[in-house]
Amino acid sequence: MDLKTEMFEIARKAKIASRQISKLTTDEKNKCLLKMADALDSNVHEIIEANRLDVEAAKDAGLSLSLIDRLRLDEKRVSLMSNGIRQVAKLPDPVGRILDERVRPNGLRLRKVSVPIGVICIIYESRPNVTADSAGLCFKSGNVTILRGGKEAIHSNTIIANLLVNAAKLASPQFPDGAIQLIKTPDRNAIKELLSLSQYIDLCIPRGGEGLIRTVAECSRVPVVKHYKGVCHVYLDKSAKFDMSERIVINAKCQRPGVCNAMETLLIHSEIANTLLPILVQRLLEHNVELRLDPRGLKIAEAVASKMNLLHKVKPATEDDWYAEYLDLILAVRIVDNIQEAIDHINQYGSAHSDAIVTEDETTAQKFLNEVDSAAVYWNASTRFTDGGEFGMGAEIGISTDKIGARGPMGLEELTTYKWLGYGNGQIRQ
Amino acid sequence: MDLKTEMFEIARKAKIASRQISKLTTDEKNKCLLKMADALDSNVHEIIEANRLDVEAAKDAGLSLSLIDRLRLDEKRVSLMSNGIRQVAKLPDPVGRILDERVRPNGLRLRKVSVPIGVICIIYESRPNVTADSAGLCFKSGNVTILRGGKEAIHSNTIIANLLVNAAKLASPQFPDGAIQLIKTPDRNAIKELLSLSQYIDLCIPRGGEGLIRTVAECSRVPVVKHYKGVCHVYLDKSAKFDMSERIVINAKCQRPGVCNAMETLLIHSEIANTLLPILVQRLLEHNVELRLDPRGLKIAEAVASKMNLLHKVKPATEDDWYAEYLDLILAVRIVDNIQEAIDHINQYGSAHSDAIVTEDETTAQKFLNEVDSAAVYWNASTRFTDGGEFGMGAEIGISTDKIGARGPMGLEELTTYKWLGYGNGQIRQ
Repeated sequence: MDLKTEMFEIARKAKIASRQISKLTTDEKNKCLLKMADALDSNVHEIIEANRLDVEAAKDAGLSLSLIDRLRLDEKRVSLMSNGIRQVAKLPDPVGRILDERVRPNGLRLRKVSVPIGVICIIYESRPNVTADSAGLCFKSGNVTILRGGKEAIHSNTIIANLLVNAAKLASPQFPDGAIQLIKTPDRNAIKELLSLSQYIDLCIPRGGEGLIRTVAECSRVPVVKHYKGVCHVYLDKSAKFDMSERIVINAKCQRPGVCNAMETLLIHSEIANTLLPILVQRLLEHNVELRLDPRGLKIAEAVASKMNLLHKVKPATEDDWYAEYLDLILAVRIVDNIQEAIDHINQYGSAHSDAIVTEDETTAQKFLNEVDSAAVYWNASTRFTDGGEFGMGAEIGISTDKIGARGPMGLEELTTYKWLGYGNGQIRQ
Repeated sequence: MDLKTEMFEIARKAKIASRQISKLTTDEKNKCLLKMADALDSNVHEIIEANRLDVEAAKDAGLSLSLIDRLRLDEKRVSLMSNGIRQVAKLPDPVGRILDERVRPNGLRLRKVSVPIGVICIIYESRPNVTADSAGLCFKSGNVTILRGGKEAIHSNTIIANLLVNAAKLASPQFPDGAIQLIKTPDRNAIKELLSLSQYIDLCIPRGGEGLIRTVAECSRVPVVKHYKGVCHVYLDKSAKFDMSERIVINAKCQRPGVCNAMETLLIHSEIANTLLPILVQRLLEHNVELRLDPRGLKIAEAVASKMNLLHKVKPATEDDWYAEYLDLILAVRIVDNIQEAIDHINQYGSAHSDAIVTEDETTAQKFLNEVDSAAVYWNASTRFTDGGEFGMGAEIGISTDKIGARGPMGLEELTTYKWLGYGNGQIRQ
């Protein structure tokens, strides 16, 4: 079978499965999920054995240590996967929620009801836990998944997917063939072929870096959940409390610098720059953060850094720095003269992900919340809260910076769409 | 200026305007809308004069009568436009609705609030009223529009767009330059250039036939609201009331056959085919409907038609008929042996638009409502109700058969997205 036919058959089978999966009750779905989790636990050694093949091949191929670390599974990581699935089983079913209800003058009752999206293609890189996490979330929300992981994780992904499917089939005879499928061919054209099949595939969620997402979005005829970067800002307004500013800045930059909701650029009002910025520079340098500042900021930072013998950690910012997602202990800093400048900077250079203002002034805060065009905008809180768990969604399949479809953290509800149901007693259009 | 630069500047200007437009209050927006409506009314003769240029050019170019009819404006049509805008002014503002609110254990208050989508590109064909309708709906929902009408309507569209913009500017100094822009170049590549600018344009809504929508969807890097066809079904279950069935079938097929929510295929349960189908065939033939039937249906229909001397109106259906959107007095008819066959037929051949079941059996109805994967699914009502006005949305910019973003009729609320606002008092991530 050639690649085109193979992908066509996988997608067609997925669409057929999506008609079946929506018939499963919540109890049946949860029963399947619990058995899937058990299957991972009781086959932990087999999983680790398969994973070892991937890890050894990765070592032989000279892949980076950080990639090998992401690839590696141990008992703890397997149990994180199985417990993740158990957690999803406990969450409320996102399907069948009544989102709107209205009775028209002619007596026609209309209900807007949440339903599964259908067939979701998940494209990811080297972390094999994504196989279990994504399959679990999509299955609970009544969606069929086509999984395409990195080729370096093929043994791990194959055993995980097989265990999930076999456990679900044993748990319920209603579990449809094709509800969870893993693409095994290493051929990179598989993605392009799959994502041309918009008659069968309803959504694609790439989980990985900007490069992966751009590649997928470029070739897809299917809607793609995009989340290119997290260039997140904290803006310290002139009325900001100094202690709160310091706490939020250090948290947003340093608590976990490698994630998308970490701060990458700090904006600070010129009226407080002379007093607050030196304190922040000192604290950030103590946290080993490299600073890249606009000319006014640079002067202030250099004075502090030179006393600390850390002048090499303080540099002038270039235009590129305002666009940069460092994912590292590096921070761009700019002094602005008013709230509008801060908002304009964020809307121009940001990635519409997560931005925060620290201020005691409600009018200023309201302006920031209204005008910053991002998925999540915070007043007096860290940008680090943009996360399905922190939002109380229970689980997260990713974060969207799109405006069509889900925006911000995507949990189970964000994996549904809706349809309109009309209940009549013979109504016709006049 | 070359085309690429021209489109880039239009899109960039639109994005800047979208930052400004979101600052307008509901009152300011409504004031602008009412002045726009007045401007159309008080310049009705100038509009008709400009339209005459388009109509004459269309006649000279030998365009079809139906196209010339769609193109033509008279006093009544202009007043439909202005009253449409007044109607939109009266509707509630769809922006700023609180869609969800939650307080997290750490005290962080999260609000999910509706906001404008941003920049919306409307691509349409010959009807110049779309200029005013779309601009009005998008403006009320806080969105900026880039309008691209058919080149045969350029004089009409230009004067309408100018009147709207000038009236709005007079009504409010806050009305941003670039909030409503019309693409005037006849170059067909303009669409492709525009729709490559996903950094500036958030959504494209093509309003027209399947050909236009496919062309737009093929070339766009911007999300496109798709609505290729309306292949709508009515399924008459074995427990269907005969009088209700007849009323709904005649309404769904004959009341306005040229629209997307009209029925194109009738499915009927074999247990009632011998008794009910002859009645329906007679009534449909009386309404001048041509029938294309499966072999079992054909036998029944031929018996009726031959008595009426209308055998030429009754033909065997081919596979293509099940996919066909006739938009005409033609109906495909198929006898099925059970509800599952009806559902499978609809999910296979339909266009996920609007489908209806007529039945007295609640379990059967529920199965149909659950399993038919369409934007609107009706029980004992005509498919013709899928419409913004009939759904109580007050106005409609179109109908979506997509699953990502709006589904079904799109009114003002469907022209918004959302963002998350986080209200804290210094919360940081643990």
